[in-house]
Amino acid sequence: MEEFQMCPKFEDAFELLGKRWTGLIIRTLLGGKKRFSDVAAAIPHLSARMLTERFKELEKQGVVERKVYSETPVRIEYELTEKGRDLSKVMDEIQIWAEKWIK
Amino acid sequence: MEEFQMCPKFEDAFELLGKRWTGLIIRTLLGGKKRFSDVAAAIPHLSARMLTERFKELEKQGVVERKVYSETPVRIEYELTEKGRDLSKVMDEIQIWAEKWIK
Repeated sequence: MEEFQMCPKFEDAFELLGKRWTGLIIRTLLGGKKRFSDVAAAIPHLSARMLTERFKELEKQGVVERKVYSETPVRIEYELTEKGRDLSKVMDEIQIWAEKWIK
Repeated sequence: MEEFQMCPKFEDAFELLGKRWTGLIIRTLLGGKKRFSDVAAAIPHLSARMLTERFKELEKQGVVERKVYSETPVRIEYELTEKGRDLSKVMDEIQIWAEKWIK
């Protein structure tokens, strides 16, 4: 069925974005690069351990980049890649839908 | 932080949409109401047991409506509600992103 040709990519995207916290982490980083502690502070109930895990997955998927600055003390920031920033429209549409429909 | 006021709704939306197969099921039904077997046939590797489970969840969330027609034999169809149809833009944006970025 030609109309379902894109199924695997669509499904892969959903598996990536659908994990708990991932959407909120991406949305937080859409506001600009941030330190680990800033992201953790912005998302209530997200543990440091879980955030570490999610960052690793998002780095592996090429959505987030971890930047290490050789300063004293060393500064580490997390930033969306182009692939990550390109999710802004998806996030906007989900936000619009959620505001309308989630009670 | 005012900018994160919508977090719970946004997160709830992600939890609903992020489950395996849910995106594909909604996308299939965006093409119009369908019988169980038609949805199953349209999504390779999705088992009947899993589809039953997902339909129940989506009904509970008010995204899908199960319609029973008193015919012989009885006809049962699954259709998106207004809440479900309203996801078309979300699905479109995810599709665009996936086609561009998922290898």
